Amino acid sequence: MEYIKKPVDIELRSFEIIESELGDKAKSFSKEHLPIVKRVIHTTADFEYADLLEFSEDAVESCIKALKEGGKIYCDTQMIANGLSKMTLGKFGYSAYSLVSDPEVAKEAKERGVTRSIVGMEKAAKDKDTKIFLIGNAPTALFRLKELIDSGEVEKPALIVGVPVGFVGASESKEILPGSGIPHIIVKGRKGGSTVAVSILHGILYQIYKREGF
Amino acid sequence: MEYIKKPVDIELRSFEIIESELGDKAKSFSKEHLPIVKRVIHTTADFEYADLLEFSEDAVESCIKALKEGGKIYCDTQMIANGLSKMTLGKFGYSAYSLVSDPEVAKEAKERGVTRSIVGMEKAAKDKDTKIFLIGNAPTALFRLKELIDSGEVEKPALIVGVPVGFVGASESKEILPGSGIPHIIVKGRKGGSTVAVSILHGILYQIYKREGF
Repeated sequence: MEYIKKPVDIELRSFEIIESELGDKAKSFSKEHLPIVKRVIHTTADFEYADLLEFSEDAVESCIKALKEGGKIYCDTQMIANGLSKMTLGKFGYSAYSLVSDPEVAKEAKERGVTRSIVGMEKAAKDKDTKIFLIGNAPTALFRLKELIDSGEVEKPALIVGVPVGFVGASESKEILPGSGIPHIIVKGRKGGSTVAVSILHGILYQIYKREGF
Repeated sequence: MEYIKKPVDIELRSFEIIESELGDKAKSFSKEHLPIVKRVIHTTADFEYADLLEFSEDAVESCIKALKEGGKIYCDTQMIANGLSKMTLGKFGYSAYSLVSDPEVAKEAKERGVTRSIVGMEKAAKDKDTKIFLIGNAPTALFRLKELIDSGEVEKPALIVGVPVGFVGASESKEILPGSGIPHIIVKGRKGGSTVAVSILHGILYQIYKREGF
């Protein structure tokens, strides 16, 4: 059977199809947001994300500024940390990490009867090098991070990507970001997930690449 | 803000909601397939998967038999290999791996002008310990695997989870499995992805756990 075998051809053709099917809806996004919307659709094959993604005005620029200063990205799943392009992050002096599989985090979570996501987030948020947060799984991680910021224990980060997927708490957790003054990108409602979180950050990284090269 | 913090409560309540919203559609799946359908919806918050998932009759039993004999799972992304429960797989003497980030694979792919997914799949399929294939990203990986099986170079595996997501070749690649005589689980159309692949395998692993404990 004949099939396209060249990676560059596949990627280009995919984005042409997405652009064509998005149609006029593409015009409702700014030039910083549209590449992110398209990349999320590329990752999920789900055009509903064009209606569900919401950006704070400063989200992309705040993230780009933070990336250029070096630092760390906290991910609420190991899959997100693993899915991010290490090579590209490395060029900015950035690394991505998750603590949900950390044995000490697991032990403390069990003792306290809370999710590992809560305990992992508490440790990550108190590390001043952690400037960007990607939350694709656990509403509890997002709730806890917001509590720590509101109470002043933790500074406002450069960006929160709030895209936990699910049926219990996911929608509600994402509603706490709009109006908070924290740079954020969210997926409204139940949808989201690890691959969505990765594609949002890649959608920002590729913009820097396009603007400036490396 | 009050939110559910106990992981067990969150999981149970999520599956109650999924079951209730699936309604009568749940009755169209066998007792082996329904837990997989529900787990994919749990992972994506997308009920469309109940219409898109397709199982060969022998898929679940063939996978369970293979799991009990020990072996390896090849994953077409590092995210899938990373997202699988290492602890649970370890109990079966199983490991999961991916070769798409392997430097030698990358080198060969560049030289041949094909995707790294094709080269990685060729190496994995020729390893006789690899009995289960999870393909969540690259149609080219699925096409190549099927070619190798059809030509007799590679034996029929115990299970192919064929859920590549995307716009170029993804739908077509999945259509080659029904009627092939290879145990398979697919997502028809464009949707799928790494998190979907992981949730399908977990949906099988948890069934063994429920039937037999560990």
